[in-house]
Amino acid sequence: MTLDRPSYVWPGGKRSAACFSVDVDAEAPYLWQHRAAMPDTIGALEQRRFGPREGLWRLTDLLERHGIRGSFYVPGVVAETYPDILPELCRRGHEVGLHGWLHELVADTTQADFVRALDRALALFEAQTGQAPAGFRSPAWEMTPAMLAALRERGLRYDSSLMGYEHPYEIDGITEIPVHWSVDDAIYFKFLGGGADKWPPVAPLHVGEAWLHEWRSGSAYGSLFMVTVHPWISGRAGRIAMLDHVLETITGDAATWWATAAEIADWHARSPNAGRFLVAATVPTGAA
Amino acid sequence: MTLDRPSYVWPGGKRSAACFSVDVDAEAPYLWQHRAAMPDTIGALEQRRFGPREGLWRLTDLLERHGIRGSFYVPGVVAETYPDILPELCRRGHEVGLHGWLHELVADTTQADFVRALDRALALFEAQTGQAPAGFRSPAWEMTPAMLAALRERGLRYDSSLMGYEHPYEIDGITEIPVHWSVDDAIYFKFLGGGADKWPPVAPLHVGEAWLHEWRSGSAYGSLFMVTVHPWISGRAGRIAMLDHVLETITGDAATWWATAAEIADWHARSPNAGRFLVAATVPTGAA
Amino acid sequence: MTLDRPSYVWPGGKRSAACFSVDVDAEAPYLWQHRAAMPDTIGALEQRRFGPREGLWRLTDLLERHGIRGSFYVPGVVAETYPDILPELCRRGHEVGLHGWLHELVADTTQADFVRALDRALALFEAQTGQAPAGFRSPAWEMTPAMLAALRERGLRYDSSLMGYEHPYEIDGITEIPVHWSVDDAIYFKFLGGGADKWPPVAPLHVGEAWLHEWRSGSAYGSLFMVTVHPWISGRAGRIAMLDHVLETITGDAATWWATAAEIADWHARSPNAGRFLVAATVPTGAA
Amino acid sequence: MTLDRPSYVWPGGKRSAACFSVDVDAEAPYLWQHRAAMPDTIGALEQRRFGPREGLWRLTDLLERHGIRGSFYVPGVVAETYPDILPELCRRGHEVGLHGWLHELVADTTQADFVRALDRALALFEAQTGQAPAGFRSPAWEMTPAMLAALRERGLRYDSSLMGYEHPYEIDGITEIPVHWSVDDAIYFKFLGGGADKWPPVAPLHVGEAWLHEWRSGSAYGSLFMVTVHPWISGRAGRIAMLDHVLETITGDAATWWATAAEIADWHARSPNAGRFLVAATVPTGAA
Repeated sequence: MTLDRPSYVWPGGKRSAACFSVDVDAEAPYLWQHRAAMPDTIGALEQRRFGPREGLWRLTDLLERHGIRGSFYVPGVVAETYPDILPELCRRGHEVGLHGWLHELVADTTQADFVRALDRALALFEAQTGQAPAGFRSPAWEMTPAMLAALRERGLRYDSSLMGYEHPYEIDGITEIPVHWSVDDAIYFKFLGGGADKWPPVAPLHVGEAWLHEWRSGSAYGSLFMVTVHPWISGRAGRIAMLDHVLETITGDAATWWATAAEIADWHARSPNAGRFLVAATVPTGAA
Repeated sequence: MTLDRPSYVWPGGKRSAACFSVDVDAEAPYLWQHRAAMPDTIGALEQRRFGPREGLWRLTDLLERHGIRGSFYVPGVVAETYPDILPELCRRGHEVGLHGWLHELVADTTQADFVRALDRALALFEAQTGQAPAGFRSPAWEMTPAMLAALRERGLRYDSSLMGYEHPYEIDGITEIPVHWSVDDAIYFKFLGGGADKWPPVAPLHVGEAWLHEWRSGSAYGSLFMVTVHPWISGRAGRIAMLDHVLETITGDAATWWATAAEIADWHARSPNAGRFLVAATVPTGAA
Repeated sequence: MTLDRPSYVWPGGKRSAACFSVDVDAEAPYLWQHRAAMPDTIGALEQRRFGPREGLWRLTDLLERHGIRGSFYVPGVVAETYPDILPELCRRGHEVGLHGWLHELVADTTQADFVRALDRALALFEAQTGQAPAGFRSPAWEMTPAMLAALRERGLRYDSSLMGYEHPYEIDGITEIPVHWSVDDAIYFKFLGGGADKWPPVAPLHVGEAWLHEWRSGSAYGSLFMVTVHPWISGRAGRIAMLDHVLETITGDAATWWATAAEIADWHARSPNAGRFLVAATVPTGAA
Repeated sequence: MTLDRPSYVWPGGKRSAACFSVDVDAEAPYLWQHRAAMPDTIGALEQRRFGPREGLWRLTDLLERHGIRGSFYVPGVVAETYPDILPELCRRGHEVGLHGWLHELVADTTQADFVRALDRALALFEAQTGQAPAGFRSPAWEMTPAMLAALRERGLRYDSSLMGYEHPYEIDGITEIPVHWSVDDAIYFKFLGGGADKWPPVAPLHVGEAWLHEWRSGSAYGSLFMVTVHPWISGRAGRIAMLDHVLETITGDAATWWATAAEIADWHARSPNAGRFLVAATVPTGAA
């Protein structure tokens, strides 16, 4: 509990920050889901392959139109399957970050498997881009203390998977660039059919209005507006048009600092914020 | 991955295309669902029979008011039960296409059963209309590579079940006229009661606004606006009124080409697009 | 299939009709649900008892303000537990109709139990009101051919549980006054907590707009606008305010005929519509 | 059934009342849910810890800006883990009330465990604040007659967990300050990921409009507007902005009495309302 709550400080007198993050999942979650037995159907695969075919590049076009560099988190298997993705994103000036190998869900993954996927992806990223990535984003936004430690031990500069503040903070000694469900595209738009969906897609314009409300409201608190999209979902025309409107509005605000997650993490480390927002990833013992 | 992404070309300088497709399911999915044991209840049957009684002909009236010919996909059992449907749709100038025999769900159907249903429906269509249908639409929008091959072997000119692009493309050598959940009526409106529904019907006017947003947004990318409706669902007055507004808006745009799916498939085959958007229906081997 | 579709004719040159129906369920569905083992909790009971305490009488006040007589369907156990309800509704000029004894769900009820509940409720209605009810509404809107026959054999003049047309029709020789999920309050508003709900309550004003859209759209087709509400759900202030607006709008339209379901059934029987909309409650044999 | 329905009387000629209640759950429901086996993941914990870190104090700031004192219900384990919360809330003039020890769900709790948690929390509250709390709110809004009796025996002045009226009433001899799902934040906003959510977060501005509609509609009936929020949910910037608008609107209405639940319970006991709204917490015997 922090009764004395310091304000978060952004560079150059900015009131708040915005980051456009892209989880380039493509087939990876499907491969993970069906790792025991692959069905012979292609509906979900075709829907997901729209991402690398078309959606991803509509998103980079969109960002370039608005002069924004994004942070793209790419599962190892996607970078391996589509070897042009990482080099091309780097060439365009975007950040690329880790996102597991097979989009492994934390709750179903051992620490040993997590570390193996992490090291395999790190090696591939360095081979394909010539440099080490700065950060990691957990598939489905879940972590354990041991996984945070594994990131720290490998010199990663940040994690971007948790929701403990609305601005960067430090958890177990690693910088956390927080996310939030309210500004994630998948929970509003993802629809795969076949009986497993629990709600229909939300109208893009309604989501856009809600996201702008989040951005405006967060500005008053110095929050980070961290939007997260997926190429196979938000690369569809109706969502691109929504994002276009959102970006046009936010880039028109001089008090918002657009940056990649890596830039935000680096700012955090060297700013007056460092050391002010420290938390421990304590898991309770249970019986209380 | 297609870093070099060609634009899709539509005939006569049109910017995009629109197709009004109707899945004339009536009782077929109910017969499939209860094929092992038929309950003695009639609630769902009466709701579904509103389709052939009334909804289907409200839809043909609607299309005629707007000067549009639609593509109607009819399960074999529906054509057999209501033998006036196929001839009457042909008489009015609409396209009729295949939609399985009993609305068989792909995930629960063997290749042998798929082929048997396909051939039985083909024979019935030819008997009732005097001509072979041009295309196939999968119930619930799912396919396998083997099912695509079965279509190709029977000389069908297109499939309309997948979502790999927003415009026609070729998959394993057959033309795909793509669909998308965001412009399907069932996921927004279908409600059967009895405890199985997972969300309530969405307000028709909100769906209409969202669909117009999809159309407008897709126009900028040269996309195909492929709307899909069901007579027992969208034949209800509130949805007809919504569709009326949608069609009135889109037919007012000179840059949108209204066509049947068969016409679009034929255009694709003879246009500069042919050969530019080729994909393989590859199912991963699993372990990665 | 009715290629030649006659228009429905309403009395006095009216274009369409409206009926305000109230399912006075109170605790009945809860008693049915827990008939094997009653929990000792009172949350759902208190929420449901708001109906007979307060909600029901807010609804009768509302109807009286708008000069409308409604059709109230009351499970036998509710009439027995609250013996003032049936006489008071009759005194105010409303119709009272049957709704099972314990709100028995059709799918879980034998024909013998259905008939026993029906006869027990019929006897109670006659004892409490001095007259036989004209109609029956099935809990959860489901029927079987045998249940329809049981209504007919007891001289009931109509059933109001099915969705096969948007206006009255005849099914297996009994008049059907149709309902529809899109204008039922429970699917939008019912929320009981405890983890079983599948969606949150919809904003009342949005539901009201959607209902007016249904009414307006249906008017163009001569449809019956049959709204269905529950006192424990729509007796809450926010829903009453919505209903107030809906009724104010519709009563302002001179071309809509407000009537009880019994009056509508009687009109159907003696009007030119009689015999024009006949269907059979055929249950398919399954294998097709 | 109350055919003769008295109006509820509020002090000083006010037409209705409003209460801002806060369920300070933090990790408590998570500890309860995983009491048998605690996972090693931290996603939900971090999301929940945003409450005591930040959300709770944004809410107290919000209330102070609007000159409102709220009623804060705090599980014992939360008060123990964050020992500044109760004293600080008291210092700021808010009411603090009981909310179980570990946010025990009634359906999964024996009477003995309920009483043990109640007494443990009572002792902690008295130790931390120097006074006995006035009221109790059940986690998840459920009660049994025996639990109501336990509150009464311990001299608690009210319960706030049920929905039997829209204004205070008496149930089994204890004053009930009623709640309602329609004005609870969790059902609209709570989203935890991991596959268990059944609907996506609703846009805050839509929820705010719906809540103002509830308040306006209830005013016409003399209802209590009892809003309930959670710091980890509604402490997020977008929800705070919504609440700000709601409070600004309602505090601008001179006919609405803002009070804590304890003040409302005390008013009820000494007002003309006392004895007018008496109900028994009767659980039916089942077979009817």
